[in-house]
Amino acid sequence: MPVYMEEKEKQWEKVEDPGREMVVAKRVSFDAAHYLPNYPGKCAQMHGHHFVIELAVRGSVQENGMVVDFTVLKEFLAYIVDKLDHSLLNDTIPNPTAENICLYIEKGWLDDDWGQGLCRLAWIKVWETEDSYALLGL
Amino acid sequence: MPVYMEEKEKQWEKVEDPGREMVVAKRVSFDAAHYLPNYPGKCAQMHGHHFVIELAVRGSVQENGMVVDFTVLKEFLAYIVDKLDHSLLNDTIPNPTAENICLYIEKGWLDDDWGQGLCRLAWIKVWETEDSYALLGL
Amino acid sequence: MPVYMEEKEKQWEKVEDPGREMVVAKRVSFDAAHYLPNYPGKCAQMHGHHFVIELAVRGSVQENGMVVDFTVLKEFLAYIVDKLDHSLLNDTIPNPTAENICLYIEKGWLDDDWGQGLCRLAWIKVWETEDSYALLGL
Repeated sequence: MPVYMEEKEKQWEKVEDPGREMVVAKRVSFDAAHYLPNYPGKCAQMHGHHFVIELAVRGSVQENGMVVDFTVLKEFLAYIVDKLDHSLLNDTIPNPTAENICLYIEKGWLDDDWGQGLCRLAWIKVWETEDSYALLGL
Repeated sequence: MPVYMEEKEKQWEKVEDPGREMVVAKRVSFDAAHYLPNYPGKCAQMHGHHFVIELAVRGSVQENGMVVDFTVLKEFLAYIVDKLDHSLLNDTIPNPTAENICLYIEKGWLDDDWGQGLCRLAWIKVWETEDSYALLGL
Repeated sequence: MPVYMEEKEKQWEKVEDPGREMVVAKRVSFDAAHYLPNYPGKCAQMHGHHFVIELAVRGSVQENGMVVDFTVLKEFLAYIVDKLDHSLLNDTIPNPTAENICLYIEKGWLDDDWGQGLCRLAWIKVWETEDSYALLGL
């Protein structure tokens, strides 16, 4: 075994490793209408999508073996979905591109102490369709 | 609210944020035959896959709320799929591993001004099966 | 064509590019029971998940057009699944959060020379549900 691996090995005398930096992420979906004002094409017409959001946060593994309880991410995402689901997104986000929806979600996270000092945003992904997404933070 | 969050807050007086760097990505699939010459195993025999490609580009959000129109990615991917779909990949890429297909797609992107000065390649992923992919750029 | 693209172009006189750094990844799933001791909620009760693991490794593309044969990743993942599938995870990992399962898999990789000098770990993802995962290494 090479030396660097022996060192790694020592680090791993037990599997649990409080203090190690990791990412935890959760996805949720919602359905909403939107249109893109001033867009030179069909997206200027009102239409709808089944949107999927992924929120990823980064932090140190705590003594309980978690960066942060998945429940925190779930509650935040429920808070966002409550604002956007079954709505016309333009009522909330004037120009609701996938990019701007990412930025809206980031603002929601930063407006309150969702990370509880345990984690910070790693990235936000918004899928407009199964094949298309915008990503903030990577 | 901690100071860094107040600063973040100021940055977010409005949600839209032209100039912010983000990634946008699109996926597409195609079906093709291939074989790996000189491979010591079953992959040396001609076989086929339902390939999935993800193209991700990085750039600043423009005033229109987009890094780049998803249509640009869609057109590029259609151009690639037109070359590879329902073909024997070896006719185009001599040794069509998932890695080399990534490199072929990168070459296609760089050969023309697909990014239109708005974005640059972030990564290319090629899934050979639902469970296996190669990734260039991350 | 801008100068940087001409330089890229020269680099791409042929598509194959031995020496280029890339990532290859493979996923596998298993079913297991677990409970989280000391967790203040329902996860303290024994329950089960359909877990999905993604192992990603990074290395240079070899002359054979591969970073490393997907078979190596497949064999390693089979080795891990053999230890965890249809078991009570707590018998192997005392506090089997998604984070600690990532760390367990990392230990398994590092304990032997799985990378064969060709590749090193890029990241490990463990999905506890279709919507929730922990990620080590990105």
